[in-house]
Amino acid sequence: MPASVIRAFGIIKGAAAKVNVKHGALGEIKWIGKLNRDLEADARLGHAIQQAAEEVASLKLIDHFPLVVWQTGSGTQTNMNTNEVISNRANEILGEPLGQKNPVHPNDHVNMSGSSNDGFATAMHIAAVLDLEDHLLPVLTSLRDIMKKKSQQFAHIVKIGRTHLQDAVPLSLGQEFSGFEKQLELGIQRVEQGLEGLRFLAMGGTAVGTGLNTYKGFDEAFAAEVSRLTGRRFFTAPNKFEAISANDAIVYASGALNTLACSLFKIAQDIRFEGSGPRCGLGELLLPENEPGSSFMPGKVNPTQCEAMTMVCAKVVANHTAITLGGLSGQFQLNAFKPLLISDFLHSVRILSDAMRSFERNLLEGLRANEKRISYLLGQSLMLVTCLSGKLGYDLASKVAKHAYKHDLTLKASALELNALSEEEFDLLVRPENMIAPSG
Amino acid sequence: MPASVIRAFGIIKGAAAKVNVKHGALGEIKWIGKLNRDLEADARLGHAIQQAAEEVASLKLIDHFPLVVWQTGSGTQTNMNTNEVISNRANEILGEPLGQKNPVHPNDHVNMSGSSNDGFATAMHIAAVLDLEDHLLPVLTSLRDIMKKKSQQFAHIVKIGRTHLQDAVPLSLGQEFSGFEKQLELGIQRVEQGLEGLRFLAMGGTAVGTGLNTYKGFDEAFAAEVSRLTGRRFFTAPNKFEAISANDAIVYASGALNTLACSLFKIAQDIRFEGSGPRCGLGELLLPENEPGSSFMPGKVNPTQCEAMTMVCAKVVANHTAITLGGLSGQFQLNAFKPLLISDFLHSVRILSDAMRSFERNLLEGLRANEKRISYLLGQSLMLVTCLSGKLGYDLASKVAKHAYKHDLTLKASALELNALSEEEFDLLVRPENMIAPSG
Amino acid sequence: MPASVIRAFGIIKGAAAKVNVKHGALGEIKWIGKLNRDLEADARLGHAIQQAAEEVASLKLIDHFPLVVWQTGSGTQTNMNTNEVISNRANEILGEPLGQKNPVHPNDHVNMSGSSNDGFATAMHIAAVLDLEDHLLPVLTSLRDIMKKKSQQFAHIVKIGRTHLQDAVPLSLGQEFSGFEKQLELGIQRVEQGLEGLRFLAMGGTAVGTGLNTYKGFDEAFAAEVSRLTGRRFFTAPNKFEAISANDAIVYASGALNTLACSLFKIAQDIRFEGSGPRCGLGELLLPENEPGSSFMPGKVNPTQCEAMTMVCAKVVANHTAITLGGLSGQFQLNAFKPLLISDFLHSVRILSDAMRSFERNLLEGLRANEKRISYLLGQSLMLVTCLSGKLGYDLASKVAKHAYKHDLTLKASALELNALSEEEFDLLVRPENMIAPSG
Amino acid sequence: MPASVIRAFGIIKGAAAKVNVKHGALGEIKWIGKLNRDLEADARLGHAIQQAAEEVASLKLIDHFPLVVWQTGSGTQTNMNTNEVISNRANEILGEPLGQKNPVHPNDHVNMSGSSNDGFATAMHIAAVLDLEDHLLPVLTSLRDIMKKKSQQFAHIVKIGRTHLQDAVPLSLGQEFSGFEKQLELGIQRVEQGLEGLRFLAMGGTAVGTGLNTYKGFDEAFAAEVSRLTGRRFFTAPNKFEAISANDAIVYASGALNTLACSLFKIAQDIRFEGSGPRCGLGELLLPENEPGSSFMPGKVNPTQCEAMTMVCAKVVANHTAITLGGLSGQFQLNAFKPLLISDFLHSVRILSDAMRSFERNLLEGLRANEKRISYLLGQSLMLVTCLSGKLGYDLASKVAKHAYKHDLTLKASALELNALSEEEFDLLVRPENMIAPSG
Repeated sequence: MPASVIRAFGIIKGAAAKVNVKHGALGEIKWIGKLNRDLEADARLGHAIQQAAEEVASLKLIDHFPLVVWQTGSGTQTNMNTNEVISNRANEILGEPLGQKNPVHPNDHVNMSGSSNDGFATAMHIAAVLDLEDHLLPVLTSLRDIMKKKSQQFAHIVKIGRTHLQDAVPLSLGQEFSGFEKQLELGIQRVEQGLEGLRFLAMGGTAVGTGLNTYKGFDEAFAAEVSRLTGRRFFTAPNKFEAISANDAIVYASGALNTLACSLFKIAQDIRFEGSGPRCGLGELLLPENEPGSSFMPGKVNPTQCEAMTMVCAKVVANHTAITLGGLSGQFQLNAFKPLLISDFLHSVRILSDAMRSFERNLLEGLRANEKRISYLLGQSLMLVTCLSGKLGYDLASKVAKHAYKHDLTLKASALELNALSEEEFDLLVRPENMIAPSG
Repeated sequence: MPASVIRAFGIIKGAAAKVNVKHGALGEIKWIGKLNRDLEADARLGHAIQQAAEEVASLKLIDHFPLVVWQTGSGTQTNMNTNEVISNRANEILGEPLGQKNPVHPNDHVNMSGSSNDGFATAMHIAAVLDLEDHLLPVLTSLRDIMKKKSQQFAHIVKIGRTHLQDAVPLSLGQEFSGFEKQLELGIQRVEQGLEGLRFLAMGGTAVGTGLNTYKGFDEAFAAEVSRLTGRRFFTAPNKFEAISANDAIVYASGALNTLACSLFKIAQDIRFEGSGPRCGLGELLLPENEPGSSFMPGKVNPTQCEAMTMVCAKVVANHTAITLGGLSGQFQLNAFKPLLISDFLHSVRILSDAMRSFERNLLEGLRANEKRISYLLGQSLMLVTCLSGKLGYDLASKVAKHAYKHDLTLKASALELNALSEEEFDLLVRPENMIAPSG
Repeated sequence: MPASVIRAFGIIKGAAAKVNVKHGALGEIKWIGKLNRDLEADARLGHAIQQAAEEVASLKLIDHFPLVVWQTGSGTQTNMNTNEVISNRANEILGEPLGQKNPVHPNDHVNMSGSSNDGFATAMHIAAVLDLEDHLLPVLTSLRDIMKKKSQQFAHIVKIGRTHLQDAVPLSLGQEFSGFEKQLELGIQRVEQGLEGLRFLAMGGTAVGTGLNTYKGFDEAFAAEVSRLTGRRFFTAPNKFEAISANDAIVYASGALNTLACSLFKIAQDIRFEGSGPRCGLGELLLPENEPGSSFMPGKVNPTQCEAMTMVCAKVVANHTAITLGGLSGQFQLNAFKPLLISDFLHSVRILSDAMRSFERNLLEGLRANEKRISYLLGQSLMLVTCLSGKLGYDLASKVAKHAYKHDLTLKASALELNALSEEEFDLLVRPENMIAPSG
Repeated sequence: MPASVIRAFGIIKGAAAKVNVKHGALGEIKWIGKLNRDLEADARLGHAIQQAAEEVASLKLIDHFPLVVWQTGSGTQTNMNTNEVISNRANEILGEPLGQKNPVHPNDHVNMSGSSNDGFATAMHIAAVLDLEDHLLPVLTSLRDIMKKKSQQFAHIVKIGRTHLQDAVPLSLGQEFSGFEKQLELGIQRVEQGLEGLRFLAMGGTAVGTGLNTYKGFDEAFAAEVSRLTGRRFFTAPNKFEAISANDAIVYASGALNTLACSLFKIAQDIRFEGSGPRCGLGELLLPENEPGSSFMPGKVNPTQCEAMTMVCAKVVANHTAITLGGLSGQFQLNAFKPLLISDFLHSVRILSDAMRSFERNLLEGLRANEKRISYLLGQSLMLVTCLSGKLGYDLASKVAKHAYKHDLTLKASALELNALSEEEFDLLVRPENMIAPSG
């Protein structure tokens, strides 16, 4: 079970205890007829639970959480685990021996106003929001920024464009990288849209969404307290039935990560192909040499960062499959694939964050253009003919290109042989640097 | 190739012609040195192209579009097909014979200011926006509305809740359906978020995003004209390199459909299980009988609508896999999986729309609650004990439930046998109708 | 609903009628106490049903099958559709008016000894076996054969190898194509393994697998009759409960198609990259020019066949997701995703068959090697140094390669500058043509 | 990186060293002109390498393998890691100081006759075969056996069948479990078919499949030595180009795991639904109570094993997506998704093995039938009417069932009311225990 989920559970138990104390709920637990609120007991138990919960949230007690993901689909065991670690630790704080359920009881006090069902659903959202905001978004933003820097740095380099892998009309290397930058920019927006749905917390719904065994106002006070504890925006879910029985918000946010994986796959793929060579590939980009590339071929350098990135992206796509499968498998009042859903979601967040950080540091920062090679290739291209099609018409321009290809001529030689236009006109019109923007 | 793509191409060619005429571009095409703008020719050609394009957009000429999806990855063949159908038809309008490229040339005039690469990318977005706005969103909204109506209609019916498929604390059938309503409500929001990215059009980028062979302002004027023709919001893509080389907007919007599929799968699954029986299942819902259920078992009725819906959802998830795979396969200046991407996206839109409409009409409208059965089951439940856990503590309440189960007693009998509380107290406290909301 | 399923239903109904006649079952249907077998009636009804069924199997009556895939999950509607088409036609053959159920009744006679559940499961297997054996396997075998021919034809051409897209040690182009050939060879074996499980037929299990309302021996006689009618090997499923409630055999066979899609994706990807250019790519292969590649860039040729193939492969992977999802969704005595399962399976079979045939005809047959370019690139490679590592040790060999790269030298010049070995030794050792096999 | 891969690398390096010694290859490495084979050095180095490799294979040195999956796509870093751990340890064994590459050099000696490309591909296959044969297949076989035992134990219990979740004709609980048994039986066969392709080893192909820097016979001798070391059948891959550039064998074997996941998902799903209740569900099966089911609802018991199993199955399906994506991403002479491919494959093997073992021990062993409930439900069913359809015809039988349902009658009462047959006839014919097999 990811540490982020345990941290979230610590936050949840602390927030619930605080709200329960305020309501005078903790002390009233005991026997029928004795519903007098013992505010002193409240404060005492509540304080101990909050302190213990904070220790759980700080991951100090992480060694007491041995459970794996493959458990009950509501995460009940992990919730119970938390209840027991906190009740034990709270009793210890209160000077009582460990291993008994007194005065702090794991279910009656630590779990008060909550159930595994709303609790785990809430832990999923808190963990997801924190990991996205603390890890993924900063790294993604930084990657976007360096892509922008590279785009500016490469703005002056005009190169051959490629569509269908075939030579096409030119663009600047900076323009190419501006496309990458835009993909990442949109990726940030998409992740942020996915985030919004995760800010809604199921807590207060207890087992099935009705809020049985809570009291009016608990849910809103709880969400406010979580916001206070984490410094982030959280709200109580307006419909707790949806929030417990479905985990669509996770599926949707995973869709944003899935899209980001597509973007990064494409970027990594392009860079490794443009960096292919050094002598028998495209050779337009010079990737930093970080480690020996081969145990067998001396001197070989490989695009390790690109390969790690594409593998990570494939894994994120696969995690999205697991999340989708889990997402459609809710039954009645509960989606019982919760541990899988959050485990795979956080895994995607983590490996994407790590891979993007490494990609930035170990590849992009040191990435250089091989301007000599780029210029050589551009000069070879037959597709520069395209700028003539407005003048010659598509059919004649096509003839010039094919003639050049067939007879291994330069474009100019072909044009002249076919009397398509004069050398002077050719030189005036066929200028790659003028071909990378609309006219006028 | 879906008809919606052909319609979009009609819109594109008409809009481009209009902008080109305004710019005086159509008439200047011919030979070098003759760059004087022939405004009369412009108007004449432009008018014919626009008329022919409108006929394509209205699907009148759909029989002339025989091509399938498995073609070049930029949809070049379909673009060329459109160019040729329009140029032929325009020439016909101009009183010229078919089969020649004069005076309207498919590439020089109909394709003017465009390439297959930006054209097909634009057609994808137009088709997706129109199909989502015209088909899916109205049906989804209607389904959400009827779910709300059902939720209100079922508000008074208290039933057993189920978590892990096991008996849990009660809720009202109306609350259950409010969860479905919320899922659909969020589904609308998600689809609308996905839509926003599709409003940006690649047109004006031509082959690689640079806008070669267009002129300043073409892209914005084009988007404005498409907005006018369709009555929807469209904008020119701020970065054409991204818009042609990546199709992330489709992947992201497909993620919204994928999430919707999860929601609908869950809803259909729940309804068919709650309608299972008639005598040996849960039997809480009464599904309309639309057709004989079995060729073999006389009198059998089956949840056909639910089965069709779950199959459709599985297919949407699968289409999302295809779209994801296509989405990560862009290379250099072009994503060459465009026909697959849009074909699968529109397929998802269509089958979801059809299935939701049928689900509403043939299942939800006639859906009734079997109140007698619901009431009977609720009375059996041992999980009503949960409302006592605040009074007895978790451990004693647990004992009461287990004792009842072991000795096949009612909850009350068990509570009394164990002296947990008096009959009077039990009757006062254990009231399902009081168990479906927070206290106070 | 795919025509292959309708054909299979025709075969099923004909085979069942034949076995039922032989058993004297058809004539005994009527009223209790009248169980005397009317053999004459049997023969008469049976003959008419068989004739009508044959017409269904020959697809003559296909216009009477309007149903789509999104129906009941057991395919009941399609089974009922078949029963009714056959009973109507049989009554017509017997000289009776259409539209009544007499003397041939759709359920009592045409559906006799069968249910939709075992019938549709049987139709799935028959359709899958026929389509795999009649379409996919012959095309795949042919593709393997031409790959072998190409491998032999290219055997003499030594080229640079590429790993991680980077220059590596050489191999022959024939060796490269022998790898493709092997992938296809193994693909044939895998599809054949998948086929074996599809030869087992559920028929005789009726609704839940028990065989209620059939008689001992029906199942085996039925499978034998289907084998006779189709000329293929079919067997009765040894466990009908598995055969109806699960469709694992389809999932497994789809796994073979999924693997084949991976193979073909890789092959198409390699060929289009090696054919990239013509001047700014790898340019090692010359792909046939089948159609204009661009509406915008005159003279452009694109790897259309490769793009269509990779899109098809992505779709097959996606269909496999749908099939997997359907495969895990069986419930109790029935898997109710059958129409989706078979529709997607047959779709994969069809598009793979079509794409492979087109790939063979329109790409492989005309594929040529650009030997001049291949030879030029090979001469540039630094990785020829690898054959020296056995002599110089990895570290010194590495130094030679890096020195050459850094100072833009040939490998030989670098080796000599570093005094790694003499020119004579270099010339003796560094021979690409000796580097494509183990020594000795 | 999974420990099984490290173990496999230990086996590989030991086997290669042994074959190299025999060939006299180790001692000849040094300088040009000194090609005299130093057999004594050979034996000495070879012995030390083999001993060190054995320690790696036994996982004694596992702490020296800190690398993760997200590395170069050929697993070069893990291969280099192994080379260095072994050369260091071998030098230590030979009494030399650590940290130098002398006398045993990581590349020249430990990596001799191998490359990362063929080495990692070989490690994948060895690890996969060992984990499948040592872990998955024994557990799967045991699960199949207990399912068979359960099937026999439940043979006498006749229960209502369910298709489309609706009441259907009866079968025995034993028959139901025989279907599960058959699914697992076929699962064993499928995994074994997947295994066969994994027995072929790429070693001997070195970097691109040509076998450069090996010698004739190395590959076969290597495979034989690995067979000897592991006690399993391994063979040299007949085409090394395929074996390195594609990893189709892993994709195909993963397809078998994917199918097994479908089977297990279905089985777990059925068991949890049939165990649903205890009072408001189907309640036919009694699942062992292993832990408290709820932190909130006292006395609740949940189908934890089924939920863990279905989550594991969803994860296996997702891993299959990753493996498929990796499988289609090979480029030229190398598939560079190898670490992901093997990591996800072994993950699937491990979680399936663990989940099946736990499912057997913690659920199946203690699973009991609730015969009273089963019998009660069976008596309620209207679908027993099916056995009358051979006698009454489908239409009249249908009328009897619908009449019973509409008026809340027993089937018999309905039949008598409609004068369909006499009470005597009814009692004679409608016997569930006679309805679970073909007649005669």
